[in-house]
Amino acid sequence: MILTLTLNAALDITYDVDALVPRSTHRVRHTRQRAGGKGVNVASVLSRLGVPVTASGFLGGRTGADISADLDARALPQAFFRCAGESRRTVNVVSAGDGDATIFNEPGPVITNGEWSALVDGIPELFVRSRAAVLVLSGSLPPGVPEDAFARLVALARDHGVTSVVDAGGAALRQAVGAHPDVVKPNLAELEASTGQVDAVIGAQELQRWGALDVVVSCGPDGAVVLPRDGGELRARLRKPLAGNPTGAGDAMVAALAAGLDREPAARGEGVSPAPRDGRSGAWDWSTAIRNAVAWSAAAVLQPLAGDVDPDDVTRLAAEVELEQR
Amino acid sequence: MILTLTLNAALDITYDVDALVPRSTHRVRHTRQRAGGKGVNVASVLSRLGVPVTASGFLGGRTGADISADLDARALPQAFFRCAGESRRTVNVVSAGDGDATIFNEPGPVITNGEWSALVDGIPELFVRSRAAVLVLSGSLPPGVPEDAFARLVALARDHGVTSVVDAGGAALRQAVGAHPDVVKPNLAELEASTGQVDAVIGAQELQRWGALDVVVSCGPDGAVVLPRDGGELRARLRKPLAGNPTGAGDAMVAALAAGLDREPAARGEGVSPAPRDGRSGAWDWSTAIRNAVAWSAAAVLQPLAGDVDPDDVTRLAAEVELEQR
Repeated sequence: MILTLTLNAALDITYDVDALVPRSTHRVRHTRQRAGGKGVNVASVLSRLGVPVTASGFLGGRTGADISADLDARALPQAFFRCAGESRRTVNVVSAGDGDATIFNEPGPVITNGEWSALVDGIPELFVRSRAAVLVLSGSLPPGVPEDAFARLVALARDHGVTSVVDAGGAALRQAVGAHPDVVKPNLAELEASTGQVDAVIGAQELQRWGALDVVVSCGPDGAVVLPRDGGELRARLRKPLAGNPTGAGDAMVAALAAGLDREPAARGEGVSPAPRDGRSGAWDWSTAIRNAVAWSAAAVLQPLAGDVDPDDVTRLAAEVELEQR
Repeated sequence: MILTLTLNAALDITYDVDALVPRSTHRVRHTRQRAGGKGVNVASVLSRLGVPVTASGFLGGRTGADISADLDARALPQAFFRCAGESRRTVNVVSAGDGDATIFNEPGPVITNGEWSALVDGIPELFVRSRAAVLVLSGSLPPGVPEDAFARLVALARDHGVTSVVDAGGAALRQAVGAHPDVVKPNLAELEASTGQVDAVIGAQELQRWGALDVVVSCGPDGAVVLPRDGGELRARLRKPLAGNPTGAGDAMVAALAAGLDREPAARGEGVSPAPRDGRSGAWDWSTAIRNAVAWSAAAVLQPLAGDVDPDDVTRLAAEVELEQR
């Protein structure tokens, strides 16, 4: 079973307008909203592909209740911790003419020391209750959460025999790798923000020097680069890149990596080929894992909303992935 | 007692950003939200000045619950009718540099025939329960409500001995005046949209030909023009116009007019001089009424949020209003 943790979950609101004109009043043609935040999107993709998952993190206030209600409506299992502050909304204004998106992100609740401690204290019981084999840590840290939050949670996971995947950038990623998460998946911009390196391989090697084990760097239309912990380099990309909506593509890639790491074969859903792990050493069949990761990510590009993929796209696109071993 | 009816109530959300840049992602520095819609703002101003008022209209969905919770938090009496659709939000993005506002208005719920009938059937009982002497009809009609909604409600009010004030524009105003509301208060843009006239007096006379009784036209920094039903013309303005936020100034003017029309002297709050009505003929002391209307409106300009005025500003500004009788 997979457990995703979204410390700064969001209600993602999309407004369709004719055209965005600053200093004017816009009639919104159509409104959509759904639970979001990177970890929630990862859980949503897994659920869509039939992989058992539980979404956790912090929720608070009336927006927190809206997020929870949307997850219920989508039958997505949830086990959130409460916070007194109000969960954030994001508003994404999309112009009909060119599809351009202008985004407004609320800051999110301030997490108190007590709330943070309650989450850390409650996670071991949640591992047991959700029978977690993999913990996914995704997205930004809300105000009040310590900068080493992911490092602490990675260590907690290891203590309980739970594999960890971290999708973060900047200081949160730098802190996390010190605790040796099993897989980290920055994108190129996040990798540069953390290491100052623009090259995927050099940046990934830097993360490994700081403690990272397997590093997967998502490279947009250029697919992904893997630097396994035991050496080598594997690149994967679609034969022909797809046009579409890149929002959520990274989350779908993390979902595929988590599904591959989940050691229970019964837990694997559609489009997930077995990727047997070689004991606890962390060495596994990266060629299957990265093929799936690029296919899930590409399938997400074909969907208008983050957190969604079509299982048929996943199957079809997996056959379109080219691998290059170095 | 005053009853305000807001058929398309809203949750007004304000986002403070550094600067609005289309096609980019914005970190919202500060979020504020409160119940809104023109009739709700009128009720809010009346409540702030100690005038007894009940807010009504349609509320639906989770946003409707948010609106209701905010009114409760502000101790503003409410008696809304339920609708199955989701009440709308408005998002007002304010740039820190220049204070420029860019607004996104959701369309609002579609009101079914059954919901509309339930409101029309329920209003007489609400008049009795809220001991209404004045009915305020403000703002836009949500989809599904018939275009003659205000005309029907004005007639219903008259049948129950309740005075009516209509703040609307376009087709809704054209329809409403046929039912002879006691006072209509368009602004210049609304008057032009209804009558095609850019001149306040000529436009007001046109409305009176169609059935309007007293007409008050709000003219922004130029104050207001009144054309009473029995002839003449009265202009009122501040000696020196104020700089500030014009949003909600029209609602405050309507609040002042409604407070003056409320025949129970005990119901009049701070800053409301008695404006005795001459029986039911509709002739009353317009010089006092319009002085208060311009003062309340100007006091609203000094506040950052619609629906708010400072009682001290009202008292001070009433002495600054110049009248010109023609």
